[in-house]
Formats: sequence, structure tokens, C-alpha cells
Amino acid sequence: MTYGPGSLGQAGEAGVLREVFAALGDPVSPDVLVGPGDDTALLRVRRGAVLATTDTMVRGRDWLDEWSSATDVGIKVVTQNLADLASMGGVGTGLLVSLVADPGLPLAWARELTAAIGGAAGRSGVPVLGGDLSSAPSGVVMVSVTALGELGDGVTRPVLRAGARAGDLLAVSGQLGRSGTGWLLLRQGVLSARSDPEAVALEHHRRPVTDLQRGPEAARAGATAMLDVSDGLVRDADRLARASLVRLELDDDALRSMATALVPAADLADAVTQVLSGGEEHELLATFPPGCVPDGWTVIGRTADADAVDADARQGPGVWLDGDKLDPAQGGWDHFGG
Amino acid sequence: MTYGPGSLGQAGEAGVLREVFAALGDPVSPDVLVGPGDDTALLRVRRGAVLATTDTMVRGRDWLDEWSSATDVGIKVVTQNLADLASMGGVGTGLLVSLVADPGLPLAWARELTAAIGGAAGRSGVPVLGGDLSSAPSGVVMVSVTALGELGDGVTRPVLRAGARAGDLLAVSGQLGRSGTGWLLLRQGVLSARSDPEAVALEHHRRPVTDLQRGPEAARAGATAMLDVSDGLVRDADRLARASLVRLELDDDALRSMATALVPAADLADAVTQVLSGGEEHELLATFPPGCVPDGWTVIGRTADADAVDADARQGPGVWLDGDKLDPAQGGWDHFGG
Repeated sequence: MTYGPGSLGQAGEAGVLREVFAALGDPVSPDVLVGPGDDTALLRVRRGAVLATTDTMVRGRDWLDEWSSATDVGIKVVTQNLADLASMGGVGTGLLVSLVADPGLPLAWARELTAAIGGAAGRSGVPVLGGDLSSAPSGVVMVSVTALGELGDGVTRPVLRAGARAGDLLAVSGQLGRSGTGWLLLRQGVLSARSDPEAVALEHHRRPVTDLQRGPEAARAGATAMLDVSDGLVRDADRLARASLVRLELDDDALRSMATALVPAADLADAVTQVLSGGEEHELLATFPPGCVPDGWTVIGRTADADAVDADARQGPGVWLDGDKLDPAQGGWDHFGG
Repeated sequence: MTYGPGSLGQAGEAGVLREVFAALGDPVSPDVLVGPGDDTALLRVRRGAVLATTDTMVRGRDWLDEWSSATDVGIKVVTQNLADLASMGGVGTGLLVSLVADPGLPLAWARELTAAIGGAAGRSGVPVLGGDLSSAPSGVVMVSVTALGELGDGVTRPVLRAGARAGDLLAVSGQLGRSGTGWLLLRQGVLSARSDPEAVALEHHRRPVTDLQRGPEAARAGATAMLDVSDGLVRDADRLARASLVRLELDDDALRSMATALVPAADLADAVTQVLSGGEEHELLATFPPGCVPDGWTVIGRTADADAVDADARQGPGVWLDGDKLDPAQGGWDHFGG
């Protein structure tokens, strides 16, 4: 089989490794004892344990080429992974990058992707340790990142989803609903912003950037539970509530004021929906004892005792708003749309 | 969109996580400080550094459903990753598993896959730390594993590709050509073995199993360079030769006797070709100082000084057989068929 000029297939594996993976840059950290080019990487671990997570983006499911550039995809896949580390109170120490692609994919697209991944990782001080390259059937492009990390300075244990206690405050590290609103705009054919809120929404959907320091900061401040908002506030808060066996009561006013900031990128009703259910926000959601919420976090609710521990019970752990228990299946992103 | 009964799409994300990822089993290692179900895993690291590698299998490229069961795929993807760790002198300490699949994929297939991954990992004493689930366009099924590890007992430093010295012996941990011969048989429509050599070849192609202890054993014995044979002997030996700036001279008699063991699964000429170029063998290839080759390894060549360090020169580093320099592009597997 032959492939067109400038495609991965024409360059061959060695050419792709040389031209595309080189764009990831050489790891500069002294903790990378063995970097790309051997069978595995070897990374120094300073604190006795390593955090590990993985996230994948698939063309046609997680992005559309009409809406997102290779740079957008590269930045987003790095943020997705590093936000997972941050939500444990961790910081990144290394990435592995896998590209699985149709050999007809333009080399230029792949090079832009890996340059963006290398750039985003580098800005966060995280070296790329290595990767893998596989060919895929026609049309398929998939990028998968594994992030390794350690607990941040002064963080003595990971912050889990379980751990919230009755009386804690629920807070978020930044504005919610941006990515969801950006996605709504793209679905409406708005590819270029006509207002500042549209610009913010489109940018955060295409290439979300989270302040990763917020994770270790929350851990040091005494966060009792934490995760990052990847599948929507209600769905992710419900996970935290069920893991902690508590009831989370959202504050209508706080959420409404977040929604207001999104107007006119969306009308208020849609903006509220996106604050509640927009996925891929990658801001951190955490519970704190009263008086412990760090500056810059927004309190959006509180924790109460679940009346029963049966996760399916009407009165059991879950997320509540204005006296109603919210159904996570009605507000969030399900990868298999069940 | 609706999906058929028994598909991933019908089960929905929570159902898939419950029914498919549960088959991976709970990690039983005391070193798993945080296991599946949180934003990241947390794994204890006892020796100050972690090995990390990743490998992906894609339906239609790395396997065909007509030839390989879900169990085959699960075993193979685990071996691929753990052999990479072994080839550094390491042992596995944890796996992350990503499944990226068409929502129309039968749950039963996915469950068989993850059960096989959990089983293969468990037999090697390696816990599954977590994973990721993503949907993909119609027809796509891809499984990606990241393996973490540490240097084995008594191994003080990783064995790299660079490090072979003139005068070393080149040895392999097991029989080569089995997987390649199995692939030839499948291409010829032979799905069931008619002789013991065919059974060995088909089995090793579908579900290769490598003695992972051979890696740390080689490291302790003083191996100067090592990798696993994933893309074919000539291609992988060439990588070792170039990284070490040496010339590897293969021993015709040793290779011919390996080929003979494959007859009648292949005729002798095809068997020689598969010994030289068959990929996915996952046996370990290493150089040792004379007198240091461990029992059970087969010496298949020796190392000589490269006459020049220019990698492109006729007399530079590379692989030689019977006075001829072998072209790695002519003997091995290129993921992008360039």
C-alpha cells in the first residue's frame, strides 16, 4: 500500500519517530534517568510512591477536525491528565504519549500535535518520557497520554473522592460551564467568538488550561475529598458524594452567578445547564472543613449527612439542589451514551 | 443512538465499568496505596525509581478477530508491556489499561479481554492499578496498556540498548521465529495446528508468553545491552548495534538450528526468514561478556568493533551475517509500512 506525500505512511516508522516524536522535545529533568529511545523509561521517584493515570482522545468522539486544531488536541490531552494528578494533591513528573493513527494522517498534523503536547508538558515542568506509535485503520486518529506524578510539596497523603464529612464546604477552583458552552457554540456553527464570553468558552473547550497548583494547595489546606470536573459537575459531585457517603447540597445562587458570567455566549437557562452538566471543565471540585477554603476557590455548596447509606435510596448519598435530588444520568457526559 | 443488546453502548459507561473493568480484579498488592476508582492510582516505589512503558494493540492492524480471541489479545498486550520491563532488568509493579471501542462492541468480548489482562497480570504478580474507557467510531477497538515497574532484585542499574562492547556474545532468551511462523500460517488459512511445531507457532503468535525472570537474571549476570524482540531480530539487533556503536555478527549455524525447529510449520527457507525478521517474539536479546551468558540462553552471535561510527556507512554499526551487512528495512515489521 502506498500513502500520499507528507503522510505518516510515506515517512515510515523511523521517519515518524524522527520527525514527529522529536517534536516532543528531550526531557530536561534530572529525574529522568532513562528517557525516550529505550524499551522503557526510568524516572526517579523522590517521595516513595508514584501517581499514575491515563486519558485518551479519539477523533470524531473527543474532537472534530473542523472545530479543533492539532494544537488544541495536544493541549487538551495534557490538561486532562495533569488535572487528574492535581486532583489527588499531586504534580506531574513525566508523560508517556501514544499516537495511534491512520498512516494517511499528514505528518504536519502529527508534528503539530506532539509539539503542542511537548509544549504544554514543558510549561508545566513535566518531561515527556517516551511513547508509542501504532498504525490504525483508515480514518482513525487517537492520542493517549499516561501521566506520572508525585504528591506535591507539603502534601502528606493523596486526597481521594471518599473523605468528605458532614459540615464541609464544597468549592471549585474556577469557573464552570465554559467548556460546555463552547461545545454548544461549536454545535451551533459558531467557530469564531463574537464576544468575550464566547472567546472564553471556545478557548476553554478547545484547549482547557487549569491552574495545576490548586490541587496541592487544596491538599495542604485540608481538603477532605477532591476530583476534577471532567464529566460534569452533577455527575462528578455525585461520585464524590457516593464515595464519601454524604449528601452534597449545591448553592443555587453561586451556580447562577457562574452561569451569568457565560451570558451572552449562552442564554441564562443554557448556561445554568452547562454549569451543572458541562463536561471537560477540568477545574477541581473539593470539600473543605469550614474556614479552610483557600483564596480564589468559589464555594458552591455544603455537605450534609446522608440519611441512609444505600446508594440507591431516595434519601441516600447524592447531589441536591433546591430540595431536589439530581439524577447524574440526566446531567453529564456518558462515554457510552447509555 | 441506540445499540444492540449486550453491547457496550447499551450497558452505558457505568455498566461497562461495573461489568468489564471489574473483570480486571482488585489489586491485591500492598504496594497499591490507591487503586482503581479514583482520579489516579498511587503506587509505592521501593527502589527510588519507576520504569514506565506503553504499548497498544489495534483491531485490524495488530489482530484480526478471525484469528485471535479476546483472551489472546489480552495475554499478548500484557506480554508486550512486561517484556519491555524485563528487557531493562525490571519487573512489573502495576498496569493501567485503556479500552477505546466502538459502543457496538459486545460486552462479552470486552469482559473476556479484561479478564485475560487481569489473569495474565495476576500470574506475573502485577496488579492492575486502573484504566480508562473511551468510545470510538464504528468498528474501532483498541487496547492500550501502560506498565510500571522497578529494577529486579539485585539489579543495580537498568540494561540499556547502548552498552554492548566488542567481544561480547549475543544471546537470546528463547526460540525465535515462532510468532512470525504463526502469522504465516494464519495468512495461509491454517487456524488450527496439524503438528506440534504449528501448535507452538500459532500459540506464540496469538498469546506469546515470555519468561519474565530472564530479564533481571540477565542484568544480574552482567548483560551489557538488552531489548526485547518485538519488530524482528535483524531490526531490533540493528537498534542495539547502532545504540552501542558496535557490529553484531550473527551465527548462521545457531539461527539455522532455530529455524529447523520450526519445520514443518514452515519450510526451512521461510523459517530462516521468520527467525531473522519475525516480529512480536518478545524474547529478550542481550549481549554478555564471554563466560557470563546465563544457562538457558542461546548464543546467536558476537560483537565486534564497528569500523566507523557513522551509522550510515557500509562499515558502520549494524548487523552482519555471513559477511553481509543486513538491511533492517528488509527484515522486520514497520508500523507504518514505509
